[in-house]
Amino acid sequence: MNTKPTLSELFERRLTYPDFEPQARLARLVGLDDQKSRLAKILGLLVNPGGLTDWAQRHHPGAQALLDTILRRPPLVVLAGDVGSGKTELAETIGDAVARQEKIDITLLPLSLSTRGQGRVGEMTQLLSAAFDYTVIEATKLKPASGKARGAVILLVDEADALAQSREAAQMHHEDRAGVNAFIRGIDRIANAKLPAAVLMCTNRLSALDPAVRRRAADVLSFARPGEEQRRYVLSSSLEPIGLGRHHIDALVATTGPHRGVRDYGFTFSDLTQRLLPAIVLDAYPSRAVDGARAVEIARSIIPTPPFRDGEKPA
Amino acid sequence: MNTKPTLSELFERRLTYPDFEPQARLARLVGLDDQKSRLAKILGLLVNPGGLTDWAQRHHPGAQALLDTILRRPPLVVLAGDVGSGKTELAETIGDAVARQEKIDITLLPLSLSTRGQGRVGEMTQLLSAAFDYTVIEATKLKPASGKARGAVILLVDEADALAQSREAAQMHHEDRAGVNAFIRGIDRIANAKLPAAVLMCTNRLSALDPAVRRRAADVLSFARPGEEQRRYVLSSSLEPIGLGRHHIDALVATTGPHRGVRDYGFTFSDLTQRLLPAIVLDAYPSRAVDGARAVEIARSIIPTPPFRDGEKPA
Amino acid sequence: MNTKPTLSELFERRLTYPDFEPQARLARLVGLDDQKSRLAKILGLLVNPGGLTDWAQRHHPGAQALLDTILRRPPLVVLAGDVGSGKTELAETIGDAVARQEKIDITLLPLSLSTRGQGRVGEMTQLLSAAFDYTVIEATKLKPASGKARGAVILLVDEADALAQSREAAQMHHEDRAGVNAFIRGIDRIANAKLPAAVLMCTNRLSALDPAVRRRAADVLSFARPGEEQRRYVLSSSLEPIGLGRHHIDALVATTGPHRGVRDYGFTFSDLTQRLLPAIVLDAYPSRAVDGARAVEIARSIIPTPPFRDGEKPA
Amino acid sequence: MNTKPTLSELFERRLTYPDFEPQARLARLVGLDDQKSRLAKILGLLVNPGGLTDWAQRHHPGAQALLDTILRRPPLVVLAGDVGSGKTELAETIGDAVARQEKIDITLLPLSLSTRGQGRVGEMTQLLSAAFDYTVIEATKLKPASGKARGAVILLVDEADALAQSREAAQMHHEDRAGVNAFIRGIDRIANAKLPAAVLMCTNRLSALDPAVRRRAADVLSFARPGEEQRRYVLSSSLEPIGLGRHHIDALVATTGPHRGVRDYGFTFSDLTQRLLPAIVLDAYPSRAVDGARAVEIARSIIPTPPFRDGEKPA
Amino acid sequence: MNTKPTLSELFERRLTYPDFEPQARLARLVGLDDQKSRLAKILGLLVNPGGLTDWAQRHHPGAQALLDTILRRPPLVVLAGDVGSGKTELAETIGDAVARQEKIDITLLPLSLSTRGQGRVGEMTQLLSAAFDYTVIEATKLKPASGKARGAVILLVDEADALAQSREAAQMHHEDRAGVNAFIRGIDRIANAKLPAAVLMCTNRLSALDPAVRRRAADVLSFARPGEEQRRYVLSSSLEPIGLGRHHIDALVATTGPHRGVRDYGFTFSDLTQRLLPAIVLDAYPSRAVDGARAVEIARSIIPTPPFRDGEKPA
Amino acid sequence: MNTKPTLSELFERRLTYPDFEPQARLARLVGLDDQKSRLAKILGLLVNPGGLTDWAQRHHPGAQALLDTILRRPPLVVLAGDVGSGKTELAETIGDAVARQEKIDITLLPLSLSTRGQGRVGEMTQLLSAAFDYTVIEATKLKPASGKARGAVILLVDEADALAQSREAAQMHHEDRAGVNAFIRGIDRIANAKLPAAVLMCTNRLSALDPAVRRRAADVLSFARPGEEQRRYVLSSSLEPIGLGRHHIDALVATTGPHRGVRDYGFTFSDLTQRLLPAIVLDAYPSRAVDGARAVEIARSIIPTPPFRDGEKPA
Repeated sequence: MNTKPTLSELFERRLTYPDFEPQARLARLVGLDDQKSRLAKILGLLVNPGGLTDWAQRHHPGAQALLDTILRRPPLVVLAGDVGSGKTELAETIGDAVARQEKIDITLLPLSLSTRGQGRVGEMTQLLSAAFDYTVIEATKLKPASGKARGAVILLVDEADALAQSREAAQMHHEDRAGVNAFIRGIDRIANAKLPAAVLMCTNRLSALDPAVRRRAADVLSFARPGEEQRRYVLSSSLEPIGLGRHHIDALVATTGPHRGVRDYGFTFSDLTQRLLPAIVLDAYPSRAVDGARAVEIARSIIPTPPFRDGEKPA
Repeated sequence: MNTKPTLSELFERRLTYPDFEPQARLARLVGLDDQKSRLAKILGLLVNPGGLTDWAQRHHPGAQALLDTILRRPPLVVLAGDVGSGKTELAETIGDAVARQEKIDITLLPLSLSTRGQGRVGEMTQLLSAAFDYTVIEATKLKPASGKARGAVILLVDEADALAQSREAAQMHHEDRAGVNAFIRGIDRIANAKLPAAVLMCTNRLSALDPAVRRRAADVLSFARPGEEQRRYVLSSSLEPIGLGRHHIDALVATTGPHRGVRDYGFTFSDLTQRLLPAIVLDAYPSRAVDGARAVEIARSIIPTPPFRDGEKPA
Repeated sequence: MNTKPTLSELFERRLTYPDFEPQARLARLVGLDDQKSRLAKILGLLVNPGGLTDWAQRHHPGAQALLDTILRRPPLVVLAGDVGSGKTELAETIGDAVARQEKIDITLLPLSLSTRGQGRVGEMTQLLSAAFDYTVIEATKLKPASGKARGAVILLVDEADALAQSREAAQMHHEDRAGVNAFIRGIDRIANAKLPAAVLMCTNRLSALDPAVRRRAADVLSFARPGEEQRRYVLSSSLEPIGLGRHHIDALVATTGPHRGVRDYGFTFSDLTQRLLPAIVLDAYPSRAVDGARAVEIARSIIPTPPFRDGEKPA
Repeated sequence: MNTKPTLSELFERRLTYPDFEPQARLARLVGLDDQKSRLAKILGLLVNPGGLTDWAQRHHPGAQALLDTILRRPPLVVLAGDVGSGKTELAETIGDAVARQEKIDITLLPLSLSTRGQGRVGEMTQLLSAAFDYTVIEATKLKPASGKARGAVILLVDEADALAQSREAAQMHHEDRAGVNAFIRGIDRIANAKLPAAVLMCTNRLSALDPAVRRRAADVLSFARPGEEQRRYVLSSSLEPIGLGRHHIDALVATTGPHRGVRDYGFTFSDLTQRLLPAIVLDAYPSRAVDGARAVEIARSIIPTPPFRDGEKPA
Repeated sequence: MNTKPTLSELFERRLTYPDFEPQARLARLVGLDDQKSRLAKILGLLVNPGGLTDWAQRHHPGAQALLDTILRRPPLVVLAGDVGSGKTELAETIGDAVARQEKIDITLLPLSLSTRGQGRVGEMTQLLSAAFDYTVIEATKLKPASGKARGAVILLVDEADALAQSREAAQMHHEDRAGVNAFIRGIDRIANAKLPAAVLMCTNRLSALDPAVRRRAADVLSFARPGEEQRRYVLSSSLEPIGLGRHHIDALVATTGPHRGVRDYGFTFSDLTQRLLPAIVLDAYPSRAVDGARAVEIARSIIPTPPFRDGEKPA
Repeated sequence: MNTKPTLSELFERRLTYPDFEPQARLARLVGLDDQKSRLAKILGLLVNPGGLTDWAQRHHPGAQALLDTILRRPPLVVLAGDVGSGKTELAETIGDAVARQEKIDITLLPLSLSTRGQGRVGEMTQLLSAAFDYTVIEATKLKPASGKARGAVILLVDEADALAQSREAAQMHHEDRAGVNAFIRGIDRIANAKLPAAVLMCTNRLSALDPAVRRRAADVLSFARPGEEQRRYVLSSSLEPIGLGRHHIDALVATTGPHRGVRDYGFTFSDLTQRLLPAIVLDAYPSRAVDGARAVEIARSIIPTPPFRDGEKPA
């Protein structure tokens, strides 16, 4: 493989914020206010590090050393949590909030699955290096001589554990190790050049990430399954418009939660939106209207996705 | 391997619906009404997404967001269950029901076993990509400028776990991982082009499927061993015509079920049709007629296929 | 390896039935009447499928659907059982019974051990394909335009588990997987062409066979260690001619059986004929005649071959 | 790979002491006085072995044999301890103390991550050999004909376990073993030439180091998590300047320590500086000033990095 | 590797019987009378199969079928037992007894360790095939047109488990499997040509032998550690000539046996002759004569070789 | 790799005895008198086998058979024991004792670590063969036509387990197996040519040595950690000259031993000389004299090297 990989090989697509669709999706992400806020602030500081200095001068004059600690953190955030907990959704939409907040354009580059390559020696390393090359080029254009950046780039690595697996695992292949090193070098390139770019990694196996990668994370945001309130929000916002009553919504919220002695986990966000809601609709389609009692019955027949077995609880 | 694989290398055969033979086979599939109905609806909506909108306008005007969730699901359905539980039979015949229901022609392309290749690096990826290429070409011809498709294509992947094995397994080979990625890209190509095509995967090892593949499934249909009623249907429809009486049929139905304290599972559909019925006939052949008491005796001597050991119960 | 493998590389030898030697050996196989009968019938129907129709018209007119089920079964029979239980002996001699019963010539092609190859990539696949090519060519010559075949071919795969190992085993090598696929394709070629040919697989590790191979088996015949009556037959037919009395034969039969609390298995057929009988003779040779009491003593000193550890009891 | 690797491939960067920045960082390393002192003395003797002789003549005339034992120790020191315990920080800054103490210039060469190579056979060996070549060349220039060296070189190997993994591990790859041997030869080259150079290895998996490497270590310095006093120093030096009072600092010190029955470990240095302090600041930013009570609340919500599982407690 | 391996690569040396040295060594092998007798008879019949017919005509006229069973057994004998139990010694010397008994010359070819090759693909297969080629050529020269052979060849495979490891072991390498097949083909070539040649395999891991190899063994001779009588023979024949008295010999015999509650095994033959006797002599050398009490003391300080862990007790 | 490896690639260095430095080091090895004596005698007999005959004629005329057993033992001695127990030190210095005792010159060739090669196929085999070639050439020059040798060669293999690992380990690589075979052939070459050469292997993992290698060892000498007396010797000989009193030496001896309930092992020789003594000196350097009470305090803070985990206790 001597030819440079093309853009479409490297990235699944290219998104630009602000835009209406991600704004709407971000708004629908309930119960993740803390993660939203932390992520938006970290990304905002990459674009506009001067903001923190302004704040310190206002509130804490003379705290420069403390600020340096924060501004020196590598531009990497890990989003860790169960399948269907909303981490990918947040990663794909947070750019909109930052773009609006900082009043700039932000570009999202989601690393393509094919960047994992096909197992040829050196291939993953080359693909990753090319992806970071592209990210650096884009971000460099947006970096001002001084002051606030004209825009920012977010490199999104979903299902990151496959890419940056822990070197603790004895079976780790040299090819994978080389990929981890390429990844670390990429992060360091962005950090050293102080570019307006960030890397977001999503994983449901936090403990499988290489420690050298985790150590470089400025923050690790954790995502859990939706609680009662979040389930109610998702279900009622979809089902009330088609006429389900409070009583049935209540029953659905209860049914989709954990059940003591049966299972200690409830439905994931995905279980609710990708499995339960379609099943309720398709059961009625094409001949009947959706019926509340029948909807609850369907919810009872669905077993939620079991949690991914991972040895570690993220912070 | 520089030459493109031929059609006969990629697919075991090519079936077109409607046709009498699959219609008859589908009719013989007893006790799977729920799976039939769900699968037919999902496939029908791929051909004719307008159907759902019509239904919503009739029953639930203003539920467009909910409908979008359903119509945006990837065109992949997983059929999971024990060996001999009828999942492959349903996958091979459901096209007939959809063809009749939507009044169009449907083509079934069963992925050949040889698509797993012979272990050469890059081979499985190339074969899978070629299979999806072909599927996309066929489906593109059937896609209308607007409205209902002129036909549809179903790509069938039987014994899918061998192809799309979980990346959780540490031993997973790069070649296999590349195959999984090629598969995911194929699904995404069909979805993005909104083609009238669907992928059906049959597996008896749901937990062995790659999570990234499972997550893309619009639905996971589960198949169990036949219950008492289903066993009775299969046995009586074959054995009453050759003269077995109610008493012996009853005994056969009981014998082929689970036996408390001995085994907690009964005969599979395959055990009934591929093992028990031939054994009854061959025992009599060539010198005697089939005898009911002897048939029961033969059933008692057959040990049903043990369930495949898999760590997970599908929903 | 570009050259086609030669016949002598593919098959250990080539046997033709009817012949006196296999007739005698088949007659000596005691206690396997059920297996003999089932195997002869299945093979007979491959040669002469019309026989079953004739039988049905005589006894069960109108049972064509049931007959189709039987005639559509793939031409593969698995013989499963412990080392020394007679399965290979039956596989090597049953052809004689079928040849006499159907009054045709039958050819046995025992797959050579070397067909497993030497581990070169693609080698096992190529060797297996060549073996099936040869089988198909031979059987095609014997297939009539209509009616009963002029002869039949039996492809024998002894120690089949080494060739068609279960894909469940995570360690399975790509080379082996390719061999399994080549094997399945071979079976399907014979079935699709409705040739007068069958494949017999012998294995002492039923559970190690690939499920996709097992599922294609028309029947799985199981073989156990000889019971008391069978041991008596083997021992008395060899030792009475040289003068051992009833009393000592009784003692030998008891000694070679299971012993409660000591071991739950007795001698295999091979333990009796390959180990015990030679030991009795060689002990006397060259200076003394065989003595009954001493023969019993020798039997007591031999520990029977322990059963092969396999997780599954064949039906 | 026939071309010699370049300097920038081998080393992450090149630092020279004395310098202000490492001096400040070294001063901030609280609670590591013993490790500082031992490391500075060992490095000092490599530059100026005559110092020990002078000391012995002053205090212990006639103890030359004992001195020889010390001066003959290989120029390798292992810094072992938990993630975030300050070992890398000490390794990167101790050169400043030695440079000032001995009044010479000291160069630090941190081995680049890429020196682990990309898995090509022989690659790691070649890269390591090149790194030692460079170290030897630099140190040779600094070696005087007699007496005290004109300067010194420190080769720093961070995350050393990945490079010099124990040969006890059965799975160890030949490539890795070759790397270990190259490493040992490098140490021996420096020792045999009595050059003013030392190798510092940092690891959080002491037991994973190859025994042949450990045996060559002149000293193994161990690093633990910060105790109460060290946590107080870190927290108060950052938070007092922005106005937090004694009461809140006390609460933070307690919160970040071990909690009996909950966890037997407290925050690492990194947990304090890279996670807690930024979280406190970003929580307030951009709209509020940092608040003590809220800071304690944030500290409670952070779970400290779990200790690396390693079978051995370093001395 | 295109060149044929040379004789000295294939065999460690070439021995011819009868000869004085092996005669003396065979005579020194105490307590192995049964194994000696069985092995000599089996080898004798390979040279002179007519002997068995003569015997039968004398004692059991009409037992030809039984004799055929014996004469058809493959020319392979397995010698199985613990390290130091005398199996290799017997294999290297039994040829002398057979040569004298049958009044012919016998050649022993001990397979060289290097025949295991260096791991190149196809190498072990080629080396084994060459070794069997040579054996077949030599034996063919000795085969008469009819009647008794003019001589015989024994191919000795010591430490056979390394060569013919069980295919049950999942980890078995293709290269090894190919070696097993080459070995089986070699045995079959000798058997089919009815040559005056035999293969002796020595192993201390009977269960590690490939079942397909074991099944071909005409006999499996088992070897145990020396009992009290055998230890006394070995010790007294060496130590009485240098003056040790009955009392000390008794003590040595007891000391070198099993000790209840301490260890359930005594000294091996090798422990006695290779370790204990030299230790007694060297302790006295060069200044003192051997002393009985000191000899017992030395025996007490030696821990016998622990038995090889193997899951199976040979018959 | 077609070029022959050079001497400096094969051996770390080349030592000749007698010499003052090894004489002094050997004298310092306390508590190993038994090992010294046994090793010197075995090596002495290789140089001068006539010595044993002279002794026997003097003390035990007519014991030639017993002497042959001893003189036929292969020229291999294994030195087995814990890290830091003095086995390598003895192996590197015993040549001096033998040289003085036999009044000849002895050459020590320590096999270089690099002889393990870099993992290229065939490399270790070639390097080992070259090392034995060189040893044989040197020793051949020293072999007299008759009588006592003019000198001797000792080939030292330290950390031998890495080279001659047990073939019992299923994971053993072909490359390693080939290395073991090359090693065995080397030993046999020296033995067959009756050269004045010996091979010494040091290992801390006796059970990891290939059984075929161990079986060839004339003797296995075991080494333990220093006892109280040995620790006292080491400590007082270093610390009394610099003024430590009896009281403090006593305390140091006790501190460095095992502590019931805490650990069942004390300091190794290396722990004493390479860690404790330097720590005591460096603690005082450069400003104070060594102080006894402080020395004891330092000893308490050092955790002795834990014993290497190995499944077997050498005899």
